[in-house]
Amino acid sequence: MTDLTAQLAHLQTPCLLLDEAKMARNVTRMQARAEQLGVTLRPHLKTSKSIEVARRTLTGGTGPATVSTLAEAEAFAAAGLRDILYAVGITPHKLGRVLALRASGCDLTILLDSLPQAEAVAAAARASGQAIPSFIEIDSDGHRGGLQAGDAALIEIGKLLEDSGAGLRGVLTHAGESYGVSGTQAHERFSEKERDATVSAAEALRAAGLPCPVVSVGSTPTAVAARDLTGVTELRAGVFAFFDLVMAGIGACSIDDIALSVLATVIGHQPERGWILIDAGWMAMSRDRGTAAQAVDQAYGLVCDAQGNLLEDLILLKTNQEHGIIARRDGAAGPLPDFPIGAQLRILPNHACATAAQFDRYHVLPAKGAAPLQEWPRFGGW
Amino acid sequence: MTDLTAQLAHLQTPCLLLDEAKMARNVTRMQARAEQLGVTLRPHLKTSKSIEVARRTLTGGTGPATVSTLAEAEAFAAAGLRDILYAVGITPHKLGRVLALRASGCDLTILLDSLPQAEAVAAAARASGQAIPSFIEIDSDGHRGGLQAGDAALIEIGKLLEDSGAGLRGVLTHAGESYGVSGTQAHERFSEKERDATVSAAEALRAAGLPCPVVSVGSTPTAVAARDLTGVTELRAGVFAFFDLVMAGIGACSIDDIALSVLATVIGHQPERGWILIDAGWMAMSRDRGTAAQAVDQAYGLVCDAQGNLLEDLILLKTNQEHGIIARRDGAAGPLPDFPIGAQLRILPNHACATAAQFDRYHVLPAKGAAPLQEWPRFGGW
Repeated sequence: MTDLTAQLAHLQTPCLLLDEAKMARNVTRMQARAEQLGVTLRPHLKTSKSIEVARRTLTGGTGPATVSTLAEAEAFAAAGLRDILYAVGITPHKLGRVLALRASGCDLTILLDSLPQAEAVAAAARASGQAIPSFIEIDSDGHRGGLQAGDAALIEIGKLLEDSGAGLRGVLTHAGESYGVSGTQAHERFSEKERDATVSAAEALRAAGLPCPVVSVGSTPTAVAARDLTGVTELRAGVFAFFDLVMAGIGACSIDDIALSVLATVIGHQPERGWILIDAGWMAMSRDRGTAAQAVDQAYGLVCDAQGNLLEDLILLKTNQEHGIIARRDGAAGPLPDFPIGAQLRILPNHACATAAQFDRYHVLPAKGAAPLQEWPRFGGW
Repeated sequence: MTDLTAQLAHLQTPCLLLDEAKMARNVTRMQARAEQLGVTLRPHLKTSKSIEVARRTLTGGTGPATVSTLAEAEAFAAAGLRDILYAVGITPHKLGRVLALRASGCDLTILLDSLPQAEAVAAAARASGQAIPSFIEIDSDGHRGGLQAGDAALIEIGKLLEDSGAGLRGVLTHAGESYGVSGTQAHERFSEKERDATVSAAEALRAAGLPCPVVSVGSTPTAVAARDLTGVTELRAGVFAFFDLVMAGIGACSIDDIALSVLATVIGHQPERGWILIDAGWMAMSRDRGTAAQAVDQAYGLVCDAQGNLLEDLILLKTNQEHGIIARRDGAAGPLPDFPIGAQLRILPNHACATAAQFDRYHVLPAKGAAPLQEWPRFGGW
């Protein structure tokens, strides 16, 4: 029994494993990309929701960050982060918490894409006498929200933000549709869409006499593939630190880059059906089936031994709340590897953000195998 | 503005709402069924994971319960529950926690379906000198685990449990395949399968001179449809307390029975696409798409106004982590109800177990509208 096997044997399953060495490699690679492209890296911390991961992901340990909830902003601000972008469209009833965070010394910025939102922000800035620097969201690919770069409302919103003292921080886009295409060339085209949309929006704002210091783009696929970010000032990406099967399926990483897995235990066998039952169901994996629409459907995940070695052709075929069914990919019954009751296996997840969210901590496989496992807490909520 | 609307306006969204009156009605109905059928009701608490809900769901407030994790067993035992069934196949490394719970005075029972599991349980019982009363899982529908009722291993396992002092508490099945069929008649056929399999297994054990005091069956659909449980002693069901769109889709409840919803806020509009954006994405709803394979696909949920009134033809079409896109069911663009930025809406979930698990508390709409909202905590983990 290796040191690692012995350490894993002490864990209650299911639990979440994080390979620190793989994460460090992923982070180093993305930081090098940002440097090479001449932009600031603003990692999205919605994937990890962990102070310990943030310290290892952000430039200088506390550098610019993106979050998806005010709960994240509050937790990371309390841990010392001072430059946080809340990248979900603001609503009036959240402005109280935004103002409180800004008053505490955190440069929290917000996102909006409509005049009613800008009016609410402007009113709050006037009423409080505080700046609430805002990004205007630009739609670069029809994914979700955002204004078209040429929309006249852009200027109207920018003026209202500036005139009210709220402040216009810049423009932002996220090419979420890049997740739906495969390969570096396809992702690079989405990166170009991000750049075109934001740079032309920034130019329109500047031509109207408005400031637009920050031009922010990004998604993990476009960040991995970008070749030219002229005019862009910052790059956002989240899942790159952990990667997952969805990212591998579109060629944004290799399977070997995936730093996150779920440790599970064999609880039963149904040999006539070709099934091995484990104690990791959808409560552990999440219900995410992001590879279902990809060229290779990984069901609920790829199966590895406890050391992390991929077991060819074994997938987590089905899940119930606390049960998982492992089977051969081809669906054939017949002999399976002989894993006795109590044996541990690891499952690589479809979607790191969704799987990690099912757990309250990471068990960290240290860069050097012999060191003891660490526990890093993670948080959730809004 | 009604009292309820004013109270909801104070909540940060997304958050989880529980309609106490609907829950009470669902619970009363299931308790009446169990009484009429002459069986003990052993609710599954994996749906709610809440002490407050358990008190309102269990017979006498502390009656027999089912759980899906040892974390649930520990939390409910600490709250005073004394009869808990951990209904996921046991593994050797979990027996320490089982023994600790039993030593604390909780009659925790466990589940197994193989000789290696029984050997581990027998060894732990001998080593500790404590009973570990166990259920043998019977497969009634090919859903997942369990022995066939006629399997010779049944007797061998029963003898080993009895001889070792662990103890055989009974037999158990769960017709999980009942979720895949629709209508009372179809569910009643699965109820008959549950009864046939467990009663014949119990008879085989008794014929071999073994005790089998408990014969346990159940799933929400079969519990709702069961007409004759002769030979069965207890009925298990979980989601019945809240219900959800999956249960409504197979006719196990009506839409009006659904007690759980997610409160969300409008954060944007894309009128050309026929979209309303809200701040509830899959992190709030879960990734569960359980209605996808049903006659009516509800996408990520049905949309109601803040008061809970269903808005015809509006569904939560797509989700990202913290964004939801509401659209017309028919996919048509064009005029939508005029919900301004900041308006609150409620979403009925596909799967109550999965959606509730995304939150750490319930905001409880009291049976009488004017009373203040309560907060009931819920827990997770393993």
